[in-house]
Amino acid sequence: MTQNVYDDPDFFAAYSGMRRSLEGLDGAGEWPAVRTLLPELRGLTVVDLGCGFGWFCRWARERGAARVLGLDVSERMLTRARAATNDPAISYEQGDLETLELPQAGFDLVYSSLAFHYVGDATRLFAQIRRALAVGGHLVFSTEHPIYMAPSSPGWRVDGGVKTWPVDSYLLEGPRTTNWLGARVVKHHRTIGTTLNQLIQSGFTIEHVEEFCPTPQQIAARSELADEVHRPMFLVVRART
Amino acid sequence: MTQNVYDDPDFFAAYSGMRRSLEGLDGAGEWPAVRTLLPELRGLTVVDLGCGFGWFCRWARERGAARVLGLDVSERMLTRARAATNDPAISYEQGDLETLELPQAGFDLVYSSLAFHYVGDATRLFAQIRRALAVGGHLVFSTEHPIYMAPSSPGWRVDGGVKTWPVDSYLLEGPRTTNWLGARVVKHHRTIGTTLNQLIQSGFTIEHVEEFCPTPQQIAARSELADEVHRPMFLVVRART
Repeated sequence: MTQNVYDDPDFFAAYSGMRRSLEGLDGAGEWPAVRTLLPELRGLTVVDLGCGFGWFCRWARERGAARVLGLDVSERMLTRARAATNDPAISYEQGDLETLELPQAGFDLVYSSLAFHYVGDATRLFAQIRRALAVGGHLVFSTEHPIYMAPSSPGWRVDGGVKTWPVDSYLLEGPRTTNWLGARVVKHHRTIGTTLNQLIQSGFTIEHVEEFCPTPQQIAARSELADEVHRPMFLVVRART
Repeated sequence: MTQNVYDDPDFFAAYSGMRRSLEGLDGAGEWPAVRTLLPELRGLTVVDLGCGFGWFCRWARERGAARVLGLDVSERMLTRARAATNDPAISYEQGDLETLELPQAGFDLVYSSLAFHYVGDATRLFAQIRRALAVGGHLVFSTEHPIYMAPSSPGWRVDGGVKTWPVDSYLLEGPRTTNWLGARVVKHHRTIGTTLNQLIQSGFTIEHVEEFCPTPQQIAARSELADEVHRPMFLVVRART
């Protein structure tokens, strides 16, 4: 089963205090970049894999999606998502991305924000997603960038006055254990090449690959984003059946 | 015009002494990985962009390619390529990848080894290549990996006993000036995402993306390759029209 650190009370409290938890989509720096990759949502059947508090599910309905299913491994997050939602066209279910079974051709859009790096068996996941998409359907997802995830000791260094990110083990794929918000978190490092090849082998056509970079406007508004030009934190992909 | 450091006599002498210059394709660590991405060559019309000493052109003919054109910016390299070739189906021409004009639908395979990172205007180059390929034709190329190229001060560091590669400026695309083989060499840094999106926008379908990693057998045979698992040096892409 996917690690479910989100149901740890201390972690949940810390995560709940993050900007992206409090402000929703607009609190996530990468959201404007992700948003531009989404298809027109009107009339679509959508599933959000790792829906958290359900911010995207509600947004998709506001944009005209016909039905939205939010899946998450965390019951705590689903409880809060349900409490924040008053819309019979949105449903939330507990689901584990390692063992996920979706209805065949059941969706026009599979969306996922920062959940796939918790999944060990991405080949199985992508095959499930491919099967679950209708003809012409899209997969749009963000994941932690492998440059961010690879190092055995991630974190900024200062080298000759320049901030640098010490990459090692980039081509050694597999689990990475880090401390995040006071918890031991296990993520699964895969190169960009591996992720794209797994998608292609699952029958997807790659439409766009974005290594998220904050815009000058974002940096002006939130100075802590300035360092993000030095190493990418997020990878965003749009693929089509 | 593309920088032509290869016609500098001192650089040319140093480059000529490299393993990949002396031993040809088998002297290049990434060649086995590139080779597996090539289509069946029998009967194909092939162009090699940045052909150097012509090793690939001759190999392609040995594998049954019908005609092979080698282009390179360096007259010194072309002189040596011509001297090493005795085959009327192989021709060599001086050509600059920044201003290249290829015949429409003139080739079944466009191949390039470690030349595209010298090109500033990759959008123009990919559009030219797309136009030059027949229906179902392939582009297979290697280029320096952006993790390798991005840093303002590339080179291994040792951090807590671990070898690391100090990434900075990864999302700041543009020229990078380094010293290589005693010369000032200008390369053009682009993220993987940018390269793939430029290909997609030019009408290519991405078929495979390889961040080259030496195999355990290669490392056993050449111990200097052991560090290469910590950061990728080469990116290899296969795309189809």
